[in-house]
Amino acid sequence: VRTIDWRDGAVVVVDQTALPHAVRLLELRTVDALVDAIRRLVVRGAPALGAAGALGVALACTQAAEEGWDDARFDAEVARVRAARPTAVNLAHGVDRALAAQAGGAGAVEAVALAVLDEDGAANRAIGERGADLLAAAHDGPLRLHTHCNAGALACVEWGTALGVVRSLHARGLVRSVVVDETRPLLQGSRLTAWELDQLGIEHRVVVDGAAASVIARGLVDAVVVGADRIAANGDVANKVGTYPLALAAARAGIPFVVAAPESTVDPHTPSGDAIAIEERPEDEVTGWPGGAPSGWAPPAFNPAFDVTPADLVTAVVTETRVIRPAAGERPA
Amino acid sequence: VRTIDWRDGAVVVVDQTALPHAVRLLELRTVDALVDAIRRLVVRGAPALGAAGALGVALACTQAAEEGWDDARFDAEVARVRAARPTAVNLAHGVDRALAAQAGGAGAVEAVALAVLDEDGAANRAIGERGADLLAAAHDGPLRLHTHCNAGALACVEWGTALGVVRSLHARGLVRSVVVDETRPLLQGSRLTAWELDQLGIEHRVVVDGAAASVIARGLVDAVVVGADRIAANGDVANKVGTYPLALAAARAGIPFVVAAPESTVDPHTPSGDAIAIEERPEDEVTGWPGGAPSGWAPPAFNPAFDVTPADLVTAVVTETRVIRPAAGERPA
Repeated sequence: VRTIDWRDGAVVVVDQTALPHAVRLLELRTVDALVDAIRRLVVRGAPALGAAGALGVALACTQAAEEGWDDARFDAEVARVRAARPTAVNLAHGVDRALAAQAGGAGAVEAVALAVLDEDGAANRAIGERGADLLAAAHDGPLRLHTHCNAGALACVEWGTALGVVRSLHARGLVRSVVVDETRPLLQGSRLTAWELDQLGIEHRVVVDGAAASVIARGLVDAVVVGADRIAANGDVANKVGTYPLALAAARAGIPFVVAAPESTVDPHTPSGDAIAIEERPEDEVTGWPGGAPSGWAPPAFNPAFDVTPADLVTAVVTETRVIRPAAGERPA
Repeated sequence: VRTIDWRDGAVVVVDQTALPHAVRLLELRTVDALVDAIRRLVVRGAPALGAAGALGVALACTQAAEEGWDDARFDAEVARVRAARPTAVNLAHGVDRALAAQAGGAGAVEAVALAVLDEDGAANRAIGERGADLLAAAHDGPLRLHTHCNAGALACVEWGTALGVVRSLHARGLVRSVVVDETRPLLQGSRLTAWELDQLGIEHRVVVDGAAASVIARGLVDAVVVGADRIAANGDVANKVGTYPLALAAARAGIPFVVAAPESTVDPHTPSGDAIAIEERPEDEVTGWPGGAPSGWAPPAFNPAFDVTPADLVTAVVTETRVIRPAAGERPA
């Protein structure tokens, strides 16, 4: 089953707020429903958001025809999809690709959106193989890997980026174990990544985010592999908050810090990390717990959803077409 | 009210598992009850554990008299107090100080234990003033501070170490705000430190632990100040897991990383951080939430309670008698 797909004129997504307790599919038939799902992280992950952006335009075309929207309304609705979350460039990229087909009518838009989905699956498999080549060459024997958040099939249409690399290595018998950061506040690591690794039969252990850097310092992992929400032209990488300390620790420990992401994550219009808008999410995510009842204690909180890892700490960015080595001075764009 | 005190032959502690929802005092009348309270973190924090160690010996003296323990039983019970948690050297130190008075009888032991408590309060006030001097000299105007876990009055007998520095700065009008890491898994930051700062009327915001390093990288704080559970002879510092990434980020950002702790935390018998035993706590702390019901999803977890910050990242260790600058090559012992 794909994490996000198109069926009978609706966007169908695996509801990631229900995992790991239930695998629930949601049908989103309106732009409103899609934007809400993106904001609530029902669908999340940069590559999946790229697909959501493209499918959102297809949805807007259908709704425009059914409800008689004028061009201004259509543009406004598409703009809402585009702006539903600010950090991942893939969302805007997906919207723009589908919009470019608009002259051909709703059918052309739908075809482009479906192509975005297919390409994502193919790109992830290519990323997985290239990342596995890189890590297999960098280390003798099976690896102890470390990842943050969820850059698995659930963050994409299928297969996964960082977890795609883990899967490709696993297929070669080269994964010893995976350390998974729980990834507060929304626990994408312990809820989603641990669930995916469990399904795949790959040995893993969850740690609190504060333990990630010292797990690396203690020599308990051989390489870090994470996804990305946006990669600036100079190689600075925005990813889920909590990624940057792993890069700091990996650089000090002398182990590879590898970013696995499709080319659509590279944004040539963003010169460096300073130019990346960091989404701030609601305070109650910090003072609460996914699915938990409010505790009655809610101190003031600050909830940036992403951080920026500077290029000099990024050993390699692996995409479906190339390996870029920002720490060695190579630029993605 | 003191966090830990001695009243009518019993150890009286503020139950830190009940905070911030309730300020509840617990009377501990047996070594069993004290060891259980230490293990469950009803009483926690290196200086408070020093007091608990000393009072534990006083408790053992009383129980020995009442229940007719022989010397072997007494020694075994005291050894249980000493080993109730492995990482903070203060616990063993408190036990040893009280034991040294044993020849003088139960009254002498009790007097030494009470002296440990009084000294802790005085030491913390001295640490606070010295730390405030250091930071006031390092920065023009009110500071934006960053702390991890709880090194406040609740971690000590009273006043606090890292938060003691914050309080001394606050008394001089030199605190703009404090960033508090929530400190998973047990949330000593959001439950205890935020509560103490709220009581003191000091502006603060809680962040998830993964956000700590990037808050520093983004220039949102001027200095980091934390406590310590053990300081090795070379200046390596063991503290609550999640401290090390703050030190990495502070070094890169060029802001001070200050450790505030009493001299009893310095362990001349521990040559470096490699020799510090890192307590591993139960997996269900990682897969759950303090006070929360089990979610039914419990992936395998790894739960080290402390990490080690290498000396070269420690700008200063501030004790009640001196300032040591490990990053500049000074050794605490």
